Amino acid sequence: MKVPPNFSGVIAPVLTPIGEDGAPDPDRFIEHAEWLLEDGCTALAPFGTTSEANSIGLDDRMELLEELVDAGIDPAKLMPGTGTCSVADSAMLTQHAVDLGCGGVLMLPPFYYKNPSEEGLFRFFAQVIDEVGDDRLRVYLYHIPPVAQVGFSLKLIERLKNEFPGIVVGLKDSSGDWSNMKAILEAFPDFELFPGSELFLLDGLRHGAAGVISATANVGARAMRRLYDNWRGPEADAMQAEISALRKTIQSFPMIPTLKALIAHYRQDEGWAEVLPPFTPLPKAEAERAIQLLAEQHNFRLDFAEAA
Amino acid sequence: MKVPPNFSGVIAPVLTPIGEDGAPDPDRFIEHAEWLLEDGCTALAPFGTTSEANSIGLDDRMELLEELVDAGIDPAKLMPGTGTCSVADSAMLTQHAVDLGCGGVLMLPPFYYKNPSEEGLFRFFAQVIDEVGDDRLRVYLYHIPPVAQVGFSLKLIERLKNEFPGIVVGLKDSSGDWSNMKAILEAFPDFELFPGSELFLLDGLRHGAAGVISATANVGARAMRRLYDNWRGPEADAMQAEISALRKTIQSFPMIPTLKALIAHYRQDEGWAEVLPPFTPLPKAEAERAIQLLAEQHNFRLDFAEAA
Repeated sequence: MKVPPNFSGVIAPVLTPIGEDGAPDPDRFIEHAEWLLEDGCTALAPFGTTSEANSIGLDDRMELLEELVDAGIDPAKLMPGTGTCSVADSAMLTQHAVDLGCGGVLMLPPFYYKNPSEEGLFRFFAQVIDEVGDDRLRVYLYHIPPVAQVGFSLKLIERLKNEFPGIVVGLKDSSGDWSNMKAILEAFPDFELFPGSELFLLDGLRHGAAGVISATANVGARAMRRLYDNWRGPEADAMQAEISALRKTIQSFPMIPTLKALIAHYRQDEGWAEVLPPFTPLPKAEAERAIQLLAEQHNFRLDFAEAA
Repeated sequence: MKVPPNFSGVIAPVLTPIGEDGAPDPDRFIEHAEWLLEDGCTALAPFGTTSEANSIGLDDRMELLEELVDAGIDPAKLMPGTGTCSVADSAMLTQHAVDLGCGGVLMLPPFYYKNPSEEGLFRFFAQVIDEVGDDRLRVYLYHIPPVAQVGFSLKLIERLKNEFPGIVVGLKDSSGDWSNMKAILEAFPDFELFPGSELFLLDGLRHGAAGVISATANVGARAMRRLYDNWRGPEADAMQAEISALRKTIQSFPMIPTLKALIAHYRQDEGWAEVLPPFTPLPKAEAERAIQLLAEQHNFRLDFAEAA
């Protein structure tokens, strides 16, 4: 019998708004997180790649997570990113998330040294899990080789799953490679697999995926949620086609600055367009082109007033 | 007139010994740093790639640096690595190093996101330098594209140099690409360039390099120093040939675990062979093969008793 998944549905790697002082802005952050849950997200994954997590200081990351929980967001719905290049800092962030009651953590592998051995990666995760030493811990592996360069082989996933049953419970696959997702779904049917893009949402669900964790859920969770809730229905393929078309237009622009520019526009809040280095904000003209193209081709708009 | 360089000569990116608890071992670390200065190093670059810096927690990095200074090592001779993926943490480590009186810092670019724009990288460094806001700061850019993937173009170097004269003063070039080092030396004759390998020591010095910062200086600084002190002499090419031959044998093994295995062997201290994940220690048989090969082909040995 398949155990009910810990997380499922549509999860947004929450964008991190930046204040005038160049540091993350907790108020805008909480407001956005709450809006995402209203807009259809079943859970939130703050401090992912889309969140510019690695561009944020460790202390700020912990403080922001506390702010979300203090604001009343159910920590069971939070799967913060906690993977860094060191066991020590990864264990610190992970312990902090567990102590706050987070439903899980999304862990990057150490990504500085390239071509690490499978044994070395296994030891990294084993040491983090042992240091945290908490039964409440649920680890989701974060496979994103296009950015991290370092990823998870099927063999490594199997080893971690077997060594830490009930703790290493899932994986976000941002490889963009459907054959890899399919291989994981087939090899480990009890694993919670989340494609890293809604391009693979329907195919994923049909093969046993738990849902999706996608950057664009920051501006388009509602449609993804509709598909997630109705994927066995007759409209599923048509919904997927619309979702995919929108995604492709958005990703034809630089993803993170564009998502922030869209929110800045529809919230009429220019500050939202700020990003942390090494990113730069989307130039005004590009932002206008994105807004227009999305409106014309996909009838795209964000209505924050409605949600409030 | 060329300003005298802030750093010059042979600099070791100090290996970080690991204690039985899996954390860095301050006592062995201090002992090794002191020995390196006796063995010919003119200065030390703790927390480089060879130091497994990114595998160490931020708090431990700051504590270890304090231990070196507390042990009596002249901070003017220290060029710690302080570059992380975030402005906030890079500024924190850099401020800490400046406050301790370190002669400079060696800064990686943010290395999580790939293909950042030149403008984005410029802003990253500008923000760190502004946040630290200290005239005593001396920044050495750390160019190591084979590992970090993100590097410094000539144009970016020029922009940083011009924007922060007297602060951005040098670069360690671990590209392994002599044409890149030559281009930097020719474009910026007043810049302190350090090749990241002694394979380029003599060529570097002949073209105006300030010295060398090399992993293998952890076990072979003496010969490099002899060449540095006598590079205009008649024996220089022969010395370089010997140094290069030794380097090539060492780098035919996995660099960091091998350097630690060599020290473990000659110190008769097995604990020295420990590494942090994602590295794994060199297997015993491999270590023995390295020790034997180096002894036979290069008459290599380390005499710690002599230095003490």
